[in-house]
Amino acid sequence: MNATAGESPRLLRALRREPADCTPVWFMRQAGRYLPEYRKLRERHGILDLCWTAELAAEVTLQPLRRFPGLDAAIIFSDILMIAQPMGMQIEFVRSEGPAIRNPVASEADVAELRPVEPQRDLKPVLDAIRLVKRELKVPLIGFCGAPFTLASYLVEGGPSEDYLKTKALMRQPAWPRLMARLTEAVLSHLRAQVAAGADAVQVFDSWVGAVSPEEYRERVMPWSKMIFDALDVPAIHFGTRTAPLLELVRDAGGDAIGVDWRIALDEAWARLGDVAVQGNLDPQALLRTPADLQNRVDDILDRAGGRPGHIFNLGHGILPETPPESVEAVIERVHERTRR
Amino acid sequence: MNATAGESPRLLRALRREPADCTPVWFMRQAGRYLPEYRKLRERHGILDLCWTAELAAEVTLQPLRRFPGLDAAIIFSDILMIAQPMGMQIEFVRSEGPAIRNPVASEADVAELRPVEPQRDLKPVLDAIRLVKRELKVPLIGFCGAPFTLASYLVEGGPSEDYLKTKALMRQPAWPRLMARLTEAVLSHLRAQVAAGADAVQVFDSWVGAVSPEEYRERVMPWSKMIFDALDVPAIHFGTRTAPLLELVRDAGGDAIGVDWRIALDEAWARLGDVAVQGNLDPQALLRTPADLQNRVDDILDRAGGRPGHIFNLGHGILPETPPESVEAVIERVHERTRR
Repeated sequence: MNATAGESPRLLRALRREPADCTPVWFMRQAGRYLPEYRKLRERHGILDLCWTAELAAEVTLQPLRRFPGLDAAIIFSDILMIAQPMGMQIEFVRSEGPAIRNPVASEADVAELRPVEPQRDLKPVLDAIRLVKRELKVPLIGFCGAPFTLASYLVEGGPSEDYLKTKALMRQPAWPRLMARLTEAVLSHLRAQVAAGADAVQVFDSWVGAVSPEEYRERVMPWSKMIFDALDVPAIHFGTRTAPLLELVRDAGGDAIGVDWRIALDEAWARLGDVAVQGNLDPQALLRTPADLQNRVDDILDRAGGRPGHIFNLGHGILPETPPESVEAVIERVHERTRR
Repeated sequence: MNATAGESPRLLRALRREPADCTPVWFMRQAGRYLPEYRKLRERHGILDLCWTAELAAEVTLQPLRRFPGLDAAIIFSDILMIAQPMGMQIEFVRSEGPAIRNPVASEADVAELRPVEPQRDLKPVLDAIRLVKRELKVPLIGFCGAPFTLASYLVEGGPSEDYLKTKALMRQPAWPRLMARLTEAVLSHLRAQVAAGADAVQVFDSWVGAVSPEEYRERVMPWSKMIFDALDVPAIHFGTRTAPLLELVRDAGGDAIGVDWRIALDEAWARLGDVAVQGNLDPQALLRTPADLQNRVDDILDRAGGRPGHIFNLGHGILPETPPESVEAVIERVHERTRR
């Protein structure tokens, strides 16, 4: 059972670094292909159909909550590239290859053609899904967006990339600040709209930011991320992967909690981060191991967190499709049981 | 007569630094107390009533255009502090002392209480006034906002200031980037909404930015102004006064045209600014002089502009209430006559 009566939910307490009855836990991509009930829906609907149909997005969002009542948060089912469609990007999901953009951004002229986003008009299904979910949900709902850099990397590369060479080339052009400003504006208005629709907190996914150097981050990424966190007035989680070289800068850009992946030890990361909440950092691969192995890995992370208020247990990235649902159940139980005061 | 058939209006040509049949001219505060027809309306309505009533704001906007058909632009009648009211600021206009804010921003907690602005809901009369004006207007309509710094200075000082000491103190606090981010977001959405309602160009008023040092500008003002110009996709004029020490930085923050005041010679300013349009820079006091004196001052500015495409003739700040309307007429005629190709 979650949230003692009269007490604010564990997730929100952790985001304020207040003690809670136990450590909150949720999973990135907790609604997804590892769930049989999700796969069943996907037999009949494309992933973009799920995202653009409020009732389906709400249903998918709630699936893991029904299966695992111990989850401490829901995250709205959506895709970080949804925002790019009303901006004018033509997006396809190629089966098992992820998103592909048919008209990537290559020049200042392309940037000038990007259209401003009006969430109430352009992203209404996301907002409607949030309203539908909130009618049923007993734990906090997390809204989200991609961070400007990670969105820019998709728009420029046209899809996932190994080396982000095009993005890093554009970064040195006058088009870059214009692109980042437009993405920042779109992200902020979308996050605001999600909060107005009922999201209790937001997560900003700078998933690919580990590709840039500290110098590049400081000069060409951070100002726009910071603008977003500075302007928000709800609890915010700032997520990235491979951020070990950037941790202090990512923290300075903002966020009540900083998400870290398994490539850095949680205690080391938290020592560097200082006075901020921390989210993480189980390797998604750990959910594919034996129950004993998995429990050891969970315990190690909890030990490193040391019971300090402000830890949100999560993976370092999304749940893998091969994950047995029982592993998710086991992690939720172990985290709650081992941290209960 | 304005704008030859089939040719885009002079103001828009100048903003693109294209040659036009003659130099465009308009006046900051061209709708205002120097006009008898404006004073007549003000006998019955407070200034905030004029701003918050679409029909009255549209009427006032059009007054100078009816009297001076040679004007090359209208600017929507509004006040840069209107945006601060939906943010939660309590504003009064004290007769002849200008705006006063009863609950100035003094702390991070005050910043956290500022509400986001939704222009369609919060600033609808401005947008309706733009739509009304556009039905009648034959020249471009300029929408506008205060720049984040100048707005922040009002919010912090509670009104006009001599030295901006409170603002400069807050600038060194963690509250500052949050305040600037919220103002930036509000300004951008208001400018976007004005453009959607029909504004052909925008002017961003950083009227009091001359109070900060180049170092303060670069670190604590420029990133937010730049965010606005980077995100806009209509021609923009970036206005400030006493900006001589900041000119290159103001230009780098953005804008298709940079507004300069009479405290710097136009040719010197333009040489420093380089490849950008320039707006200015007659001293409003010049309109109180003899016709011959006034003409000499106008001619001097036109000589310094040297007929280069990209000059927009204007004052260096708003028209003074004591100005004889005939002086305005004389300037319009002289600018057009002397620059006609």
